[in-house]
Amino acid sequence: MKIVLLSGGSGKRLWPLSNEIRSKQFLKVVKSEQNEIESMVQRVYRQLTAVTDAKITIATSASQVESIKNQLGDKVSLVVEPERRNTFPAIVLSAAYLYFEKNCSSDETVIVLPVDPYVDNGYFSMLNVLDKAVQDNAADIVLMGVKPTYPSEKYGYIIPESTDSTVNPVREFKEKPDAKTAEKYISEGALWNCGVFAFKLSYLMNLVNSVVTGNKFSEIENHYNDFEKTSFDYAVVEKASSVAVVSYNGEWKDLGTWNTLTEVMDNKPIGDVIITDDCKNTHAINELEIPVIVMGANDMVVAASPDGILVADKVQSSYIKKYVEDRDMRPMFEERSWGEYKVLDFAVNEDGTKSLTKRKKIRAGKRIEYQSHKNRSEVMTVISGKCIITVNDRAHEAYAGDTYAVAEGVKHGLEAVTDTEIIEIQVGKELIADGTENFEENNKLS
Amino acid sequence: MKIVLLSGGSGKRLWPLSNEIRSKQFLKVVKSEQNEIESMVQRVYRQLTAVTDAKITIATSASQVESIKNQLGDKVSLVVEPERRNTFPAIVLSAAYLYFEKNCSSDETVIVLPVDPYVDNGYFSMLNVLDKAVQDNAADIVLMGVKPTYPSEKYGYIIPESTDSTVNPVREFKEKPDAKTAEKYISEGALWNCGVFAFKLSYLMNLVNSVVTGNKFSEIENHYNDFEKTSFDYAVVEKASSVAVVSYNGEWKDLGTWNTLTEVMDNKPIGDVIITDDCKNTHAINELEIPVIVMGANDMVVAASPDGILVADKVQSSYIKKYVEDRDMRPMFEERSWGEYKVLDFAVNEDGTKSLTKRKKIRAGKRIEYQSHKNRSEVMTVISGKCIITVNDRAHEAYAGDTYAVAEGVKHGLEAVTDTEIIEIQVGKELIADGTENFEENNKLS
Repeated sequence: MKIVLLSGGSGKRLWPLSNEIRSKQFLKVVKSEQNEIESMVQRVYRQLTAVTDAKITIATSASQVESIKNQLGDKVSLVVEPERRNTFPAIVLSAAYLYFEKNCSSDETVIVLPVDPYVDNGYFSMLNVLDKAVQDNAADIVLMGVKPTYPSEKYGYIIPESTDSTVNPVREFKEKPDAKTAEKYISEGALWNCGVFAFKLSYLMNLVNSVVTGNKFSEIENHYNDFEKTSFDYAVVEKASSVAVVSYNGEWKDLGTWNTLTEVMDNKPIGDVIITDDCKNTHAINELEIPVIVMGANDMVVAASPDGILVADKVQSSYIKKYVEDRDMRPMFEERSWGEYKVLDFAVNEDGTKSLTKRKKIRAGKRIEYQSHKNRSEVMTVISGKCIITVNDRAHEAYAGDTYAVAEGVKHGLEAVTDTEIIEIQVGKELIADGTENFEENNKLS
Repeated sequence: MKIVLLSGGSGKRLWPLSNEIRSKQFLKVVKSEQNEIESMVQRVYRQLTAVTDAKITIATSASQVESIKNQLGDKVSLVVEPERRNTFPAIVLSAAYLYFEKNCSSDETVIVLPVDPYVDNGYFSMLNVLDKAVQDNAADIVLMGVKPTYPSEKYGYIIPESTDSTVNPVREFKEKPDAKTAEKYISEGALWNCGVFAFKLSYLMNLVNSVVTGNKFSEIENHYNDFEKTSFDYAVVEKASSVAVVSYNGEWKDLGTWNTLTEVMDNKPIGDVIITDDCKNTHAINELEIPVIVMGANDMVVAASPDGILVADKVQSSYIKKYVEDRDMRPMFEERSWGEYKVLDFAVNEDGTKSLTKRKKIRAGKRIEYQSHKNRSEVMTVISGKCIITVNDRAHEAYAGDTYAVAEGVKHGLEAVTDTEIIEIQVGKELIADGTENFEENNKLS
């Protein structure tokens, strides 16, 4: 059995904590049984590895690679989509990766799961049931369905032929019915479609080969845009002749909006926040270094990050997407494989010169790429830690208070000896896509 | 006639827009008839100078001097209290200043006004009535009282002997009666005490001389702490034998809390703010450079500044003081005579080394003092404008992208040629009171 976790989405509905780079699954807002705050991707990965030794591969886009490595470690196995094209291309690419790169047998069960459902451990115990159903040839595709707790109008329903066995053939799929119809479906044993698919690798490889034939992963990868930009449900599952389903009866939540996310958060605010006693059912998360005080608020969520500040009635907050979508905002913080940064200041002068001031945290042993920039100068000032700063092939030990000003075109890099923080000021006509060149670094102190 | 404006207060009730240095009167949140946003001190000064040519002196504390000059100009006449001691010492000090420094005649009328009432222009037209009453010797002290609009429990009441004339003798003063008693007072013609006092300079000089005798302003100033730390009302007015009052019948508001302040603000948010249409009676002010989105809020105020973020029900917001009081926060932004700065970042390392990153705006022609610091280094990076940076007596022209790193003990200064912005990073064991020395600067380019 191999596991493929799909990590996608941009999560504008959880603005300002999520952005283009930090999708909702990376927000550290839920608590483990050990009372530690973790992200959804950390929670799901922890739950998965607790119940199975199966190899896990995460299918994701390039923009999420650094966040995933930062949260799960460098050793996690990744399939990086050459571009974002929905779940059908992402799943077939993962199959090709397992087949060609990991030499998996065609007979092996592959189970595809979304990376961000909030579930109890029983959800993951069902993977063995799915595996057995696939190996028993119960159907080409075996789905997991969630036993509905109310006639929701916003989910897809899987309607089984019967509810007699553990594994039942699927009769049909229905998307987002009205509540009355949903009630009828539920009385017939219908389950919510939670995006969990299981099949033999051979089944998927046939799908791959129907579009692209090749003998190497790179051949499939290079033809990624030949695969239709559509969902796996639509492209495959709903058209398949042999589909079965197993039922999961336990907690399952899609934490896609502030309203649902705050349901699983405890009441303690996160960050530097005072919520006064006269507030009711109000959640606050503050990732800024300035205090937040919330007084006399009912049923509200307050969220502050370097990207912005949201103050919203919980129900209204689900409409946030349209207000955020139009704004073309650069992310004000990012996790990177070497650590993280946040933007402290951004300015554009009358003459078009721009400046960007960042605070960067580089973890001990990590390095920022050795590079030069054509159109901007940079000033790096160490504010804590010990690092080696290399400028034009000369390496220097640097400590709090040390500054290196790097002109346009000058090669520079930094390797953190201990955890290091710097303030970096970029000044130039063009700060992004400015002709950055990367170089091999020799940062041995002379 | 001479005017003395009292500018005091720290304004914790309007946190996070007001702080120790920026009292409520400096907040730019009210609109002039010309639809320009101005502060209360700017509004009152503008209204005053429109109706009278009388010389205006502002009595204030050292911490407010730079804000006042920044908002009203360098030429404003100031009496700076050697320490904060309440209105009685502040008013007698102002009298000594007018008498000794400005050579005012003893017979001249002095009218003392608070700097922050929100009133219509008719309020200032009353000054001539007060002047005439003083010159006619109607009483030793002539007060202005505001005709009450409701039986408030939070104001002081001036009860006149009668309501027959424009100027009526005062019978007694009553502080904060209950509503029923207030109603009785109002039926007897009582007025709200709005802190406006008029008298001849001689009357005040007698008060000065009863505590300190001297022939120079500096002698009075040096004995400032001999004057009791009490209000002018308590020390003088309530004990005086000859007090009269004139009535002002017009708009008068004390904008001391978010609840009252938002009453006079229009509904348009200030700064980068979206208030969605489903909000009711909600105000938002954002002084940060990141967006604020407010959704589904009723009767709330949202205020964000570099000091913090407040989200409050308007009525509850009047209790904010206790939540802010305990926090010993350094102000994260300040107006200075040369411009303004805000703190972008502050950090303390494990070994106790601190760092502080500021963005400073220096107005064309202004300079930052030429000085050195014993215990911290500084890095100045110009991000816009043209300036002259002097380091160890050598002056350099500097433009966007130029950086000067200044070690501990090294003299440095900056003069803005055009409006200039810099990012300044301080690193050291002690950032405040760190043995700063000031020097005479020669910033001629060699």
